[in-house]
Amino acid sequence: MEKLVPVGISNKHVHLSQQDVETLFGAGYTLTPFKDLSQPGQFACEEKIDIVGVKGTLKGVRILGPARKESQIEISVADGFVLGVQAPVRDSGDLDGSPGAKMVGPKGEVELSKGVIVASRHIHMSTEEAEKFGLTDKEIVNVHVEGKRGLTLSNVLVRVNKDYKLDMHVDLEEGNAAGLKNGQTVKIVCENK
Amino acid sequence: MEKLVPVGISNKHVHLSQQDVETLFGAGYTLTPFKDLSQPGQFACEEKIDIVGVKGTLKGVRILGPARKESQIEISVADGFVLGVQAPVRDSGDLDGSPGAKMVGPKGEVELSKGVIVASRHIHMSTEEAEKFGLTDKEIVNVHVEGKRGLTLSNVLVRVNKDYKLDMHVDLEEGNAAGLKNGQTVKIVCENK
Repeated sequence: MEKLVPVGISNKHVHLSQQDVETLFGAGYTLTPFKDLSQPGQFACEEKIDIVGVKGTLKGVRILGPARKESQIEISVADGFVLGVQAPVRDSGDLDGSPGAKMVGPKGEVELSKGVIVASRHIHMSTEEAEKFGLTDKEIVNVHVEGKRGLTLSNVLVRVNKDYKLDMHVDLEEGNAAGLKNGQTVKIVCENK
Repeated sequence: MEKLVPVGISNKHVHLSQQDVETLFGAGYTLTPFKDLSQPGQFACEEKIDIVGVKGTLKGVRILGPARKESQIEISVADGFVLGVQAPVRDSGDLDGSPGAKMVGPKGEVELSKGVIVASRHIHMSTEEAEKFGLTDKEIVNVHVEGKRGLTLSNVLVRVNKDYKLDMHVDLEEGNAAGLKNGQTVKIVCENK
């Protein structure tokens, strides 16, 4: 069976803790949903903030909700050049040893000591979809993209959860490098299966 | 035998005709070499110009010399969003049907009706290197990159010329998406060889 997956391309964005939401936007503030994302319960927010690094600023960076345990800034390698930070390629939430940056909102600022990462590409899928594909949580697969800029990505992490919906997440540079458009279908290829 | 190739990562740049050099910088002007590039006779210039599209401007874009028959602007997909043009992925010199842009220099402007492209990745090699690798001019190969962001690029064009020096050229988004650094070694993989 062909293991086909739609692609979602992520531009730079921020996840905030509720405490940082209130420091940046005011006491008691809650984020305003703007558009639902592919994973149930996740949404892009109306709110944007500036991210300030030692070398430069990324203005108007979109916040994704809901609030999380810990704030996290997901950028591309090129965004890192603008900020003047070398952000490591990491899975979401794996922030130890990553560089920090200053977040500037309309009501306040937060100096993060860590949390700036380039997100590792990964595939969300539900338990049922994983069973259908014969894959398990945390498995590493290859993904093939057709086209003039076609390529096969190594080291793609599979993340399985009953609440996930089938979607592969890559960042803007990965998407552009592969000639991908949002929603385009790619194919999981496993050497041994 | 392993077919190993060093990588050169290209940021946005411009090649100019001598006529456009003179319109932008003044009558009789010649480009000023700043740094030699990997291919013999090619150089980065001291001179930079602004590229203006319908939506925005790329400021201070480096010119590469020497002057060519026809002006050509090589950008990334993300640069195309800034300009507001959808530049096609093309081999160098294949400009028919590509969008134009305005070039602004210190002494004048040139409105290009075509010439804005995203350069196709390709490998330069000398006749001797091609023989050693068992490859021929215009052959299409795959190229494997190791690492956390490892991948295998399809559709990589081989360009053979007695004056070329072994080097694979990718653009900044391809380089960042693959976690590449300038000068890093990658491997040509051919299914049938």
